[in-house]
Amino acid sequence: MKRMVFLLATMWGLQAVAQQLPKLERIEPANWWVGMQYHQIQLIVHGAGIATRSVQMHYPGVQLLQVHPVENPNYLFIDLDITASALPGTFPIIFSKKGEKDLIYTYTLRARNNGIKAQGVTSKDLIYLIMPDRFANGDVTNDVVKGMAETTLQRDSMYDRHGGDIQGVIDHLDYLKDLGVTAVWLTPVVTNDEPHASYHGYASTENYKIDPRYGSNELYKKLADALHQRGMKLIQDLVHNHMGSNHWTVLDKPAKDWVHQWPTYTRSNFREQTIYDPYGAKADKKIMTDGWFDRHMPDMNENNPYLQKYITQSHIWWVEYAGVDGFRLDTYAYNDADFMAAWGKTIKTEYPQISIFGETLVHGMPNQVAFTQGNTVHRGFNTELPGVTDYQLLWAISDALNAKENSWDDGVVRLYNTLASDYQYQDPTRNVVFLDNHDVSRFYSVIGENTAKYKAALAWLLTTRGVPEIYYGTELMMKNFSNPDGLVREDFKGGWVKDSVNKFTPQGRNSAENSLFNYLRTLATYRRENTVLQTGKLMQYIPENGVYTYFRYDSSKTLMMIMNGNNRDTTITTARFEERTQGYSRAVNVITKENLPSIETVAVPAYTTLVLELRR
Amino acid sequence: MKRMVFLLATMWGLQAVAQQLPKLERIEPANWWVGMQYHQIQLIVHGAGIATRSVQMHYPGVQLLQVHPVENPNYLFIDLDITASALPGTFPIIFSKKGEKDLIYTYTLRARNNGIKAQGVTSKDLIYLIMPDRFANGDVTNDVVKGMAETTLQRDSMYDRHGGDIQGVIDHLDYLKDLGVTAVWLTPVVTNDEPHASYHGYASTENYKIDPRYGSNELYKKLADALHQRGMKLIQDLVHNHMGSNHWTVLDKPAKDWVHQWPTYTRSNFREQTIYDPYGAKADKKIMTDGWFDRHMPDMNENNPYLQKYITQSHIWWVEYAGVDGFRLDTYAYNDADFMAAWGKTIKTEYPQISIFGETLVHGMPNQVAFTQGNTVHRGFNTELPGVTDYQLLWAISDALNAKENSWDDGVVRLYNTLASDYQYQDPTRNVVFLDNHDVSRFYSVIGENTAKYKAALAWLLTTRGVPEIYYGTELMMKNFSNPDGLVREDFKGGWVKDSVNKFTPQGRNSAENSLFNYLRTLATYRRENTVLQTGKLMQYIPENGVYTYFRYDSSKTLMMIMNGNNRDTTITTARFEERTQGYSRAVNVITKENLPSIETVAVPAYTTLVLELRR
Repeated sequence: MKRMVFLLATMWGLQAVAQQLPKLERIEPANWWVGMQYHQIQLIVHGAGIATRSVQMHYPGVQLLQVHPVENPNYLFIDLDITASALPGTFPIIFSKKGEKDLIYTYTLRARNNGIKAQGVTSKDLIYLIMPDRFANGDVTNDVVKGMAETTLQRDSMYDRHGGDIQGVIDHLDYLKDLGVTAVWLTPVVTNDEPHASYHGYASTENYKIDPRYGSNELYKKLADALHQRGMKLIQDLVHNHMGSNHWTVLDKPAKDWVHQWPTYTRSNFREQTIYDPYGAKADKKIMTDGWFDRHMPDMNENNPYLQKYITQSHIWWVEYAGVDGFRLDTYAYNDADFMAAWGKTIKTEYPQISIFGETLVHGMPNQVAFTQGNTVHRGFNTELPGVTDYQLLWAISDALNAKENSWDDGVVRLYNTLASDYQYQDPTRNVVFLDNHDVSRFYSVIGENTAKYKAALAWLLTTRGVPEIYYGTELMMKNFSNPDGLVREDFKGGWVKDSVNKFTPQGRNSAENSLFNYLRTLATYRRENTVLQTGKLMQYIPENGVYTYFRYDSSKTLMMIMNGNNRDTTITTARFEERTQGYSRAVNVITKENLPSIETVAVPAYTTLVLELRR
Repeated sequence: MKRMVFLLATMWGLQAVAQQLPKLERIEPANWWVGMQYHQIQLIVHGAGIATRSVQMHYPGVQLLQVHPVENPNYLFIDLDITASALPGTFPIIFSKKGEKDLIYTYTLRARNNGIKAQGVTSKDLIYLIMPDRFANGDVTNDVVKGMAETTLQRDSMYDRHGGDIQGVIDHLDYLKDLGVTAVWLTPVVTNDEPHASYHGYASTENYKIDPRYGSNELYKKLADALHQRGMKLIQDLVHNHMGSNHWTVLDKPAKDWVHQWPTYTRSNFREQTIYDPYGAKADKKIMTDGWFDRHMPDMNENNPYLQKYITQSHIWWVEYAGVDGFRLDTYAYNDADFMAAWGKTIKTEYPQISIFGETLVHGMPNQVAFTQGNTVHRGFNTELPGVTDYQLLWAISDALNAKENSWDDGVVRLYNTLASDYQYQDPTRNVVFLDNHDVSRFYSVIGENTAKYKAALAWLLTTRGVPEIYYGTELMMKNFSNPDGLVREDFKGGWVKDSVNKFTPQGRNSAENSLFNYLRTLATYRRENTVLQTGKLMQYIPENGVYTYFRYDSSKTLMMIMNGNNRDTTITTARFEERTQGYSRAVNVITKENLPSIETVAVPAYTTLVLELRR
């Protein structure tokens, strides 16, 4: 009976909203869920002169806690407590002003999403990183969207939009699954209604809306469902630090301090040291965190409590709405550390299994580890960041295979040394390891287009600790250097109907590409099917003569990896590895399936990482 | 009355010992003190077949806890508890065997040394490191000591003894004090009765005896007293990891496991990573810690409980006996970590103010910080090592002044970056900073004998955080590379009567040497007289255009240091340093005494570190 009244109220509300919408531009989040840990939400309300109105709402189990006017009268922030007794349904929020007609917004409370979500992307996974504009164009009808700031589509221009979209990703999930991929990380797909280079996604103009050129919120959810149906996962790329200059809250700011203001344009100094340096000056730190990343990316004031809630809620919203499984945090070091710690806690309270890794494009172990949770930084301050993009291992594998010679501390020793430093992490297996991504040179170019080195690196990537990530096109030996960065963001050939070749198919790939593709698929498939490479322990030995030997082992299997970092074949003896080889006398090469009748000595070709499954 | 009885017993005991000594070779420590925290001592007793005898002793307040026979019948280990009620005095320890005459040893308990001792060498100090054989020959009568294994004295041979000694150090304390030095660190001076290269001191053959070629225990104490009288301090260099092959306990081992045994000679792999690597193999770690440093330096088994007590007690003994103020620990990483932690606790319990720093000749911050106390290594394991020889800062200052160019991450940025990483230490001010020592190339050679760079580095050394150390001859721009190491251990000219010049005097130094000497003395004197450089806080700014600016400040003063790492003069503006320059308008150059009427802009010559005392 009671319920009927609300349904009626709702219907009335919907009509009212339809009439009034032009003056009440928006409320975000547009809905919430009942039964959330995060149940005290704050609505951001935007409308001309909205602050001159009073606010009323009545719904069982929902309390209107407070209404906050701010500097800008076009905004109100409304605190609601959706208590445990609230049921799904809708209710009107009424904005009244004497002598004027009420503005009414119908708010929706949904039942929680009981589908798969927030699973966490772990060392059991293999991540495939996609720039959606450059991967595949699954829907040509959304290539250009009328009324948006960037109107051209030009595939031969490095920084224009190329037309790739979410449908294009959905269309190739079977391709990815076949390759052995288990998780997809898309660079940001929320709306970037910017006039230039909007394709990269890191200049959001909306927090709750997928860019229409990529698809829609519904299509994004469909992607998550399609991944989950295949036993795969979805990683969302978040940017706390900045927004696009056309973000609706930037065009009409709630308050001046919504973004960091400077007397004249001030770029960040890009020195992560200022964050943890015990001797750092306030001015340097302020420029690092409050300076702008770029003229077109206003640096958000993460100390503004309204902003904090606005962005935090949007992140929770996407998990609950679409079923996101993990977060990648852009430009991590540039954020406000206290806010990020609080944010991390909030997210993990809501979704204990979710994975979070931050981008830390820095040189040096102390520079990277400073941002991870559970280390010594700030004397007890906990960043609450479980993992990072492991740039130290990227530099190490590059050095390992690009060294002029394998000396006492150069060559493969760099890998050994970097991993030995893992004692500094609370849990290094949460770090994402990679050979390249959209910000750095493609590894195939880094190692001089040497296919042997490339294969050696890939075998290492899929057998070392952590969560491996490959960048789209890695399987095709796509190349180029990151200066300028557009060069490493070329289209995946075959993603567009008009492409002359389709490298998503064996027929479209040349023999070298197929060979590399199959090599990677063999490794990735083995990794997916064998716990030893997912959660097995790692043991590494001091490299000798440019040869680095390490093991992964669990109760099911023991693998011996031998990386020959030299430009010549070699044969090693294995007696010193007895702690791990005990009980084993022979092996099978995981990639070639070749049987090794004895492992007393093992021949390793130049620039090769052997992956050997030991046998009794 | 009671006391009289003991005195009589003592006299009788002394006579008895005189008669019996030939068969009871030695007991160590030969004495202990009453009222020590460390009151349960263990005597090592050596004598042919001593284990066949029973042991008796009676002395008020002293309990014979246990007598331990070991593998070798020539040894007994006797546990005594010198309880709080024991008074100074002597008592006989009687070794009896049926049918044979008693062997009697008179043991001495002394009143504690109430003189200066264990003061700790801190950031208030300036350490001067001396290899005593190469500094000054104060007593020619001890140049060659009959009966010792190495009999030649040959000053033109890199690895022979040259005749320097403790008297030579004592003779030049006023020279050192004049230079501004406040602490002297001698490479080990305990007896090294080895046939070759015994001059370096790291192959001990005695634990309780100063090498007679350096002097005597009494002279060593005299050195400590002479230092203390001048307000200076003494650092003793300890080697836990190894002894000389002629050490008396090695020539006749208490047990086979007194030293680490290997089927064939096995050198350490010298990989510190094996100690903290979470993925390390047992075999690699064992070779690191149990492998020998050198054929002539047996690797001691620090898990042997008798050895643990033997060496620990000897270290306490030297503090109490001579008045040592701090310890430097050789080859720190090669020791057994658990033992070293226990050792550190024991020493600090006895002498809470004493300073301890370990040699960690490694590359990379994680590699160094792993050995310091209070970091994350081993998940809760505490090394109990307060400080280290800060090799990371040595590499950093070398890179700062030797970089081809000052780029984003090369040149003076290295210094900035390394210091920013200090967040990893519990207290980085306990680290010893230096430009060179007896193991590495002399800095003057490292920077290509460029006097400007040399001065810039010295100014940095004396104004950065930590305990600065200079190596003998630094003030004379002594040069050479460490390969072979003997080259960096040349004699101090003037330390020998026959030397043609005496560089201890202004008359003996050429003008360039006097200039450098005076430069260093000015800095060192200023440092000694101003708390701001001792305990003042450090603030550093991001380097710009190859210029690195940092401050030291306390309630008394503010210093601004500007290091120009470029090969050209430059002028900087100081507005961005406002957090530290606020309230100051002018400055005095600490070295030149020049007045700077304004600090809005400051001119800095090429390769120069300005040290400016700010004035209101």
